[in-house]
Order: sequence, then structure tokens, then C-alpha cells
Amino acid sequence: MPVNLEAPQTLAPVRGLRIGAVSLGVRKKPRDDLTLFELAPGATTAATFTRNAFCAAPVHVAREHLSATMPRFLVINAGNANAGTGPAGMQAARRVCDLVAAAGNCQGNEVLPFSTGVVGELLDTEPFAKAMPAIVAALDSGAWIKASQSILTTDIVAKGVSRAFTVNGHEHVITGIAKGSGMICPNMATMLSFVATDAKVAGPLLKRLLVEAVDLSFNCITVDGDTSTNDSCVLVATGVGEPVTESSADDLQALRDALLDVCTMLAQAVVRDGEGASKFITVGVEGGRDREECRAVAYTVAHSPLVKTAMFASDANWGRILAAVGRSPVSELDTDCINMYLGDVMIVENGGRAAAYREEDGAQVMAREEITIRIELNRGPAQASVWTCDLSHGYVSINADYRS
Amino acid sequence: MPVNLEAPQTLAPVRGLRIGAVSLGVRKKPRDDLTLFELAPGATTAATFTRNAFCAAPVHVAREHLSATMPRFLVINAGNANAGTGPAGMQAARRVCDLVAAAGNCQGNEVLPFSTGVVGELLDTEPFAKAMPAIVAALDSGAWIKASQSILTTDIVAKGVSRAFTVNGHEHVITGIAKGSGMICPNMATMLSFVATDAKVAGPLLKRLLVEAVDLSFNCITVDGDTSTNDSCVLVATGVGEPVTESSADDLQALRDALLDVCTMLAQAVVRDGEGASKFITVGVEGGRDREECRAVAYTVAHSPLVKTAMFASDANWGRILAAVGRSPVSELDTDCINMYLGDVMIVENGGRAAAYREEDGAQVMAREEITIRIELNRGPAQASVWTCDLSHGYVSINADYRS
Repeated sequence: MPVNLEAPQTLAPVRGLRIGAVSLGVRKKPRDDLTLFELAPGATTAATFTRNAFCAAPVHVAREHLSATMPRFLVINAGNANAGTGPAGMQAARRVCDLVAAAGNCQGNEVLPFSTGVVGELLDTEPFAKAMPAIVAALDSGAWIKASQSILTTDIVAKGVSRAFTVNGHEHVITGIAKGSGMICPNMATMLSFVATDAKVAGPLLKRLLVEAVDLSFNCITVDGDTSTNDSCVLVATGVGEPVTESSADDLQALRDALLDVCTMLAQAVVRDGEGASKFITVGVEGGRDREECRAVAYTVAHSPLVKTAMFASDANWGRILAAVGRSPVSELDTDCINMYLGDVMIVENGGRAAAYREEDGAQVMAREEITIRIELNRGPAQASVWTCDLSHGYVSINADYRS
Repeated sequence: MPVNLEAPQTLAPVRGLRIGAVSLGVRKKPRDDLTLFELAPGATTAATFTRNAFCAAPVHVAREHLSATMPRFLVINAGNANAGTGPAGMQAARRVCDLVAAAGNCQGNEVLPFSTGVVGELLDTEPFAKAMPAIVAALDSGAWIKASQSILTTDIVAKGVSRAFTVNGHEHVITGIAKGSGMICPNMATMLSFVATDAKVAGPLLKRLLVEAVDLSFNCITVDGDTSTNDSCVLVATGVGEPVTESSADDLQALRDALLDVCTMLAQAVVRDGEGASKFITVGVEGGRDREECRAVAYTVAHSPLVKTAMFASDANWGRILAAVGRSPVSELDTDCINMYLGDVMIVENGGRAAAYREEDGAQVMAREEITIRIELNRGPAQASVWTCDLSHGYVSINADYRS
């Protein structure tokens, strides 16, 4: 069950953005699985995408469209990832854009397509054609909660958050939703996240802000180490409100803080709802030579099936953490300098079991739902954190049964 | 349950080598967990060890002793890895060697110590002192089967194999045993393996032969991606029989073949007995620029929890294989050139779903206990194979319950 995660009760509308969600009608149990975002004319959009070489057809098309012009619509289907589908998949992704463009009176390349679900199955576009009139008619600025539900696949809990911030003395809002719970690893981990603000932000600055926030949030999580073919994170500035520019330092910082807050909350929500998760684990590495080596150590621990199953069992089997640190792809690691903590309890001191460590102290930390593992390398000034969850029977069940 | 793996019924004695196995008397349910190998004077020994930075105290001591002199004894305890135990652990490992030396009339550095079991618990040497008279009295050249059992921890099935080969017209033998089932990954994957022949082989040649065989066997397997702190593989040539040298090409090839055969069989046995394993999976990558990139792709697939859970479910969810290949740490991967096969069934052709692929063909392959995944990169002459198992509820149960 998700770890300390509840679906959002309310999400603040973003001026200049409307949302529709309907059912494609292709599921045994019908539910909303097609989502449409309509952006005001003049809105700017930035996006980051998966680095998986087999990126999905919609990722190719979205990249291409975004480099050509600013989008007026985002269209998302849940259930079929349209990945590994070759030329037919590309055709399908373009056809979905054309259908939205026709219904929404814009050009096909003013639509960004997103897909999430099973990899390797051809996407039938007929249901999209049929759904267009209804979804366009449904467009409504108050439908964020609906969208947070209609983009889900194996997620148990919908994920969304709103923050207010001030630009030039006027209150603005930033609202984001995300989906993702398996096939989650760095290089855009959420599978899909959509964040929007009513501030006015030029495209290049918007892109810079997004990259910075994603690096510190979505790119710091892992559920299972499997980078998805479809990961995408989109940030829209509808421009209905006040402008935020490089020259207004306070406004820029307010937006930056609100954005990082939203992205961090969403990224952590993906981990809290990680497939089969029963624990939320923070792996912090300090004292590294640079951030990259801290991340390498943190990810090695966060990916270790042995560490993750010990966490599931609430077993303070800290030897597994030590073994994972020891096999991290970091050169010249001097184990004699390394200290480790479970919560506040020192478990490893100078590379060996800490003298004062008592099993019952470790057990007390492990019994918690939220656990911090802290590793001190003591060889430099850098640090990094990664968020992950445990590996449980639930994970195996979900992934052994997903398609059946 | 282990995949097509049965414990050896007989293992051929190796002239010049005797084995003892007794109980240390520290378990709730007593069983043999201390093993001693006595090597004839003049025997040569080579070993490869884990590359985990947190390597265990016995690994440090064994390395040190082996660089000083040729060993007369190998001593192995199962249950406590003596890893992450700092200076006290080093002291304990040396003390065990001294106890064996006193009982066996040799120097302390003529003993190589090996430990396997829980990481991070101090090793009490008192039970070793008490067990020495009995284990020395038990030494017997016919005790290989006993040793194959007494070195086990979470293994379900004992692993051992003997092969005969001819040197200078005389029949010789090579016998090996291994233990390991979790914390299994490249860089010495078995946790522990002991192989011995009665041929006479100079130390440097023996080391070269071992490294070559390990690279093609133990370093091609993974159960969970977790490189152990204690992995060690030892090859002994007792020298009682005929000499094998560089100048006798046929004899050398006969030994090389027999050694690779034994190591491959043992390495695959470790995977077949992988924690919770229900499938034995070969991931073959062809057409890479070099062997390293083939291994990188193969290991990314073999480590993917999503691929491994799909295998457990016998679900031909080949999109997960494609996604894993796509995130492999290989540069400039042109997905349009890639083909993939499940057994003989083509699943991906030129980077997309193969036109002729039918779900039922994939399902037929997945229903088997032994499955081959073949990936053609089509950009070079190199190839590599990795052996792994699936990720099942059994894996989670074993690792969530191991210490309790």
C-alpha cells in the first residue's frame, strides 16, 4: 500500500488551461483514460523526455512538435505506451495529434502526444477519433483532479499538488500531476508529469527552470531501476498572469521554489506509490568528491534487491547496505573512512560495525514507514539524495500479473 | 525450486587432497558447517576474489597469505561471512588460520580462510578451536560430497561436478564444488567455489587458466546484481599426477577444456539454484562492437526486475526486454538495427514488433523452464552471454526472512 500518500482533495485551476478526460471505451471495466490539456494562445511549454534509446513513438513526435512550435494541446492516453511499435506506432501518434488538431482548430504539430501503459502493442486510433467531440466538449479549468486520475495505470493513488507564489505582488499558482509507480528510474522517472502555472515565462527560461527542478526531483528517484520508454515531464506557463524574467530575482526565486516544491512532492509521491511499496526510503550520501559519485553510491544502494527486501522485512540487515556501497561504481573507495547511519543510529564506523551499535536500535528505525540511510564517504564536499521504496511480494505480484 | 538441478551423486577424489567437514555447534539445528581442505606438499593454488570494496576479512587474509606462500589448508565456515567486521574480523580470520596451522603442523600463512553467511556479525573463534581435533581426524579424500553440503548457506541443492582428462596419456581428474544462490553478480559470482585437479601445474599458469575460466563462467552470471563481499574461487593443482605446461599444447587444452566445463557447470548451477528461481534464462547478445558492450546489454536485461518478474509469470511481455535494452549503458545504440528473439521466435525486427510475431508463439517459449533471450545489435562482430534466473515471490520470501 502507498506509504503516507493520499490523493489530492483539491487542485488549484491554472488560468489559461482547460482539461478534459473521457473514456476511450477499450477497457473491460471502462474508466477515463484519455486526457486533453488545452493551453491558451501564447502559452509557453518546456519538456524533458526519457533517455531510453527505445523511446516511444509519442516521445519522438512530442520532441519533434515541440522543437517546431509551441503547443496548444497535450493529449495523453493511459493503457497503451505505443512503444516498440515501429513505423506503425509513429503513424498512430501523428494520427492522434491530427485528430486533436481537427477537433481543436490548430495544426497537428501544435499537439504533443503522450502515452503510458503496456509496451509493444499497436495503438488503435479509432477510439480516439470517436472520443474527440466528447473530450473537447468536456474541457474545463476545474478538471485537474479528474486528469490526475485519468492518466494513471498501475498507480494506486492519484498524485497532484498546487502551490501559490507571488509575482509582482500578484498571487499566482502552480499545479502539477504525475503518474508512475513501476519502470521508475532516473533520467525522467515519472513516466508522465504535467505541471502548469499561470505566470508568463519565456520558453528558454522555462526550459532551464524545468531541467533544474527535474534534476533535483524526478531524477532522484527509483522504484525498480527500469527507465521507461515513455517518461515525459511537461511544464506549461500559460502567460495569462504576470511575467517572470531573469531580471526580477525575487519573482524568479518564488517560481523556482514553487516549481521545485511541486516536482519534489510529485517525485516522492511516485515512490510512495511505488509498485508494492511499504516503506519510503531516503538514501543520502555525503562527503563525496562530486555529486555524481554520491549519486552512484546512493543508486547502488537504492537498486539493491537485497537492501530492498531487508527494508520490506524491517530487518536491520545493515551488512547488505555495506555490501552495496562496496560494489558501487566509484574508484578508490577507502572503506576505512566510511560511516553509515540508519536514521540517527550509527551502524558502520570507519568501515566496520560501529562499536556502540545495538541490534535493537537498528530494529527501531527499521520498524518505521519512512527510513533514512545516510552514508558518509569522508573524501569530499559533495552530497546527493535518492528516494526509493522497498521490494515486496506486492511488487512481484503486480509485475507478474500486469498483463494477465 | 531449483531449475533442472540435482545434487551430485558422486564426485571423484583428487589425489593429493583430503577433506574434512564437521559442525561448529553454533546452530539451532546442527549441521556440518566447517570444512577443511588439506593439500599435498608441493600443490599449487590460484584464486580470484570479489571486487567489492568492502571485501570480507577472510578475503583480505587469504589474498595476503596466497601472495606469501602456497597454502597447505583451506578452511571454510558457513553461516557467518565475517564481513564488515573491522579489525576484530581481521583478528578472527587470522586466529582461525592459526588454529588450523597448529592442528595441521604448518605455518599460519599456509592456511587460506573463507567465510560465507550473514554480513556484519562478529565471528566467534572459540567453536573453531573446539572443532579442530575432530575435523583433522576426519580428513578423507572421499569427502567431496560432504564438502559440497557443508559450505552451503541459502542454497537448496549442493553443487559439484567431476571431469576426467588425459595428461601425457594418463587419466587425471578435476573436481569442483560451489555454493551461492543470492548476492550473486559478476566479479566473482559464486560466493565460494573450490576446484582441484591432481595434475601438476605451475602457479602462474594455474592463475592464468583460472582467470580465463572464471571470466567465461562465474563472471557471466547474475541472480540479483548484488556482488558479495566474500566471493572467492580457488583452483588447486595437487601435483601428484603428471605436469601440464605451456609446451604440451594438447595436455594444456585438455585441462583448459575440463576446467571451463567444471566452472561453467558450477556457475550455471548457482543460477539454477538462484534464490526463488523457477526459470533458467540465457541472455545472448550478438553483433556488438566489442564483448564489453554485449555484456553491458546482457546484464541490463538480466538485472531488470521487470524482465525477471515477467519471466516468473511466463508472460511474453517482450516490451520489457526492449525497454531494458534501450536503457543499457551503450552509446549510439541505433534501435532500428536491433532484432530480438525469445527462443527461436523473432519478437523485435528492426527495432519494432516483428511483423510475423504472434503472442501464442512467445507464450510457448515462456512456458519453458529454460529460456533463451537473443539480441542482435547488428553493429559489430562481438558477442557475450549471461545466465540468470527469474524474480519470484520465493526471492522476496527468502531475503525478507533470511535472518529471522
